[in-house]
Amino acid sequence: MKQNYVAWGRVKNCMRELTAYGNARKAEIGADKVFDFSLGSPSAPVPETVWEAMRRALERPDVHEPTPPEGLPALRKAVAEDLNRRYGTGLSTEDILIVTGAAGGLAICCQTLLQPGDEAVVLAPYFTEYRVFIEGAGGTAVEVPPLPDMQPDLDALAAAVTEKTRFVLVNTPNNPSGAILPEESLRRIAEILRAAGERFGRPVYLVSDEPYRELVYDTERIPCVMNAFENTIPCYSFSKSLSLPGERIGYLALSPAAGDRDALLAGLSAAARALGYRSAPSLMQHALVDCVGMTADLSLYRENRDLLYSSLSAMGYDCVRPEGAFYLFVKSPIDDAKAFSDAAKKYELLLVPSDDFGITGWLRLAYCVPTDTIRRALPAFRALAEEYALR
Amino acid sequence: MKQNYVAWGRVKNCMRELTAYGNARKAEIGADKVFDFSLGSPSAPVPETVWEAMRRALERPDVHEPTPPEGLPALRKAVAEDLNRRYGTGLSTEDILIVTGAAGGLAICCQTLLQPGDEAVVLAPYFTEYRVFIEGAGGTAVEVPPLPDMQPDLDALAAAVTEKTRFVLVNTPNNPSGAILPEESLRRIAEILRAAGERFGRPVYLVSDEPYRELVYDTERIPCVMNAFENTIPCYSFSKSLSLPGERIGYLALSPAAGDRDALLAGLSAAARALGYRSAPSLMQHALVDCVGMTADLSLYRENRDLLYSSLSAMGYDCVRPEGAFYLFVKSPIDDAKAFSDAAKKYELLLVPSDDFGITGWLRLAYCVPTDTIRRALPAFRALAEEYALR
Repeated sequence: MKQNYVAWGRVKNCMRELTAYGNARKAEIGADKVFDFSLGSPSAPVPETVWEAMRRALERPDVHEPTPPEGLPALRKAVAEDLNRRYGTGLSTEDILIVTGAAGGLAICCQTLLQPGDEAVVLAPYFTEYRVFIEGAGGTAVEVPPLPDMQPDLDALAAAVTEKTRFVLVNTPNNPSGAILPEESLRRIAEILRAAGERFGRPVYLVSDEPYRELVYDTERIPCVMNAFENTIPCYSFSKSLSLPGERIGYLALSPAAGDRDALLAGLSAAARALGYRSAPSLMQHALVDCVGMTADLSLYRENRDLLYSSLSAMGYDCVRPEGAFYLFVKSPIDDAKAFSDAAKKYELLLVPSDDFGITGWLRLAYCVPTDTIRRALPAFRALAEEYALR
Repeated sequence: MKQNYVAWGRVKNCMRELTAYGNARKAEIGADKVFDFSLGSPSAPVPETVWEAMRRALERPDVHEPTPPEGLPALRKAVAEDLNRRYGTGLSTEDILIVTGAAGGLAICCQTLLQPGDEAVVLAPYFTEYRVFIEGAGGTAVEVPPLPDMQPDLDALAAAVTEKTRFVLVNTPNNPSGAILPEESLRRIAEILRAAGERFGRPVYLVSDEPYRELVYDTERIPCVMNAFENTIPCYSFSKSLSLPGERIGYLALSPAAGDRDALLAGLSAAARALGYRSAPSLMQHALVDCVGMTADLSLYRENRDLLYSSLSAMGYDCVRPEGAFYLFVKSPIDDAKAFSDAAKKYELLLVPSDDFGITGWLRLAYCVPTDTIRRALPAFRALAEEYALR
């Protein structure tokens, strides 16, 4: 038995523990008394168009038949065309692989790109599961700590890329910080990876986790990672943009100009087979053909962002202003964020300490909750601020 | 990049190649002129109850919310109760893990149980992908050739189990042979694995791939593998019994008496995380709660079995009489089954050579086709038999 798996299975995950605690607490004192900011599960309603597309898909007699492993050609085409329209990416149907959510796509990338002894560079703060995907594939996750504004330290990134590095993993907009990678950072990352690729005589890829791509508040869209660097593998999920987190569907894209593209495609498809992913669920694939490029009404998250960020800042909390996603990253007023998270429980506030995100001393607040929950939570945040004399 | 993956991705798979050839040929001369026995995709209609359950599930506002990683409690409970009712298994909700089809379940088992250097024993003939799941997890697949009647050679199995063996993989009813493992073979396998477990001081598991469990022709049900041996991990899929192969949903079960059960459960759940399986698709989970234990009308397959087996036997083909699943295993009249498959193409017959199933000299005919296709194919089979002077 793989002992690292057994060990992981036994480790308590802060986030899940907090959610479990929250559920128990809600049963005890009433759901409206607990302010649960622990879970990044979208609350914007699924668009009516998506419901209709699903009902329509259910009328197809062939809807449960297996699709090709790469996905339904019509869906791959719709994705390529949508990306081309929005980002001018020049992709074709063959450049898109439908996968079971961004997690499935990331795991397939990790298993393909990493041999034991290989390294992948992750930019802290990062989504907890990246380490599991990387180490599960036999690789080592090399963490690069962020600058104080939670943007990546690109000099440190350049230093972290070595002969062992197979890819760098970025996430924009970022979970847990809400930061977006600006155009100039992408250019610099591309320079670093191109130079490394030349030095090593093989591509160093950029795996780009983009489930929050459409959740952007201050600009129309995020700078396109794939356009900045030809060896990018974007991993997308429809979970957040269409509020379908239970359905496990997304895609990988691969530039026609990607290095070692044929080997990479062969490797990705074999990894998907070896991991037991035959294909993404057929019903969802059929339904999404007509929904690509659409989003749920995301204005809820902007309203929440504005309310939570401004209110908490005014109370003296040190917050990163979220540019995207639906997380507020707040500095813990004491070194031990876990202890601060425990203290917040007294006020029925559930905040995830940042330790699982590759950085200490911060807390993540998932604000994908009804706006009213935030409003009702403000007195609790104020009381907590007073206890810690934040101003 | 993992070079074994790249290599696998480049190998041509006989089955898929044949299907692709068939599709091209159908476009060329008309679908009714090609007799395609290449693909094990169910053709019995999805039961109306399942369609209704899906439409009902689509009315739940929470249907797309993430389920717990182990699956929806109501579905796990329904599965446990169904198994208990049919097989007297004594399982509880906690003993069932919902996974994305039998392939997902098998891959998760392989990744959990195998460290590099470990071995898994497979009984030929076996489903092509077993080798990919085992080697993808870093293990080695040790093949045990069958007896002439396609039943496992249990003395050879006993000899193949060594200190390196982590599990034996069985498949009943079998793809590609249609054979069912009788009660007394299960008892003998249990003795072998129990003795090995005592010798090595740790469990040697029995992974039991059971997607065809309900496709049984001569008895009411297959002998229950799990009841014969406490360290069995059954992997089930709803793909074949409910004709839902595109939807990727099934389950693993774990006996309360399984050895190292807690470590195994922790390992399986961590493997599912590391491979990027967050959970099975939520809509299908909700829909299946009310459909567990139900099957499509499988009488089509019995009719096809009877017609194809008796007709081909009468023409002089040497066939294994299928007891279950929807495959007929036919001995190649020449040593090179690939060459015979090519010769069959002249008569527009698409038959899969057995080389990919861990045995040479046989052909697999998937008879999950309209009965009329079989009827219309008989003259072609007769002409092929005459060419090879089968009688």
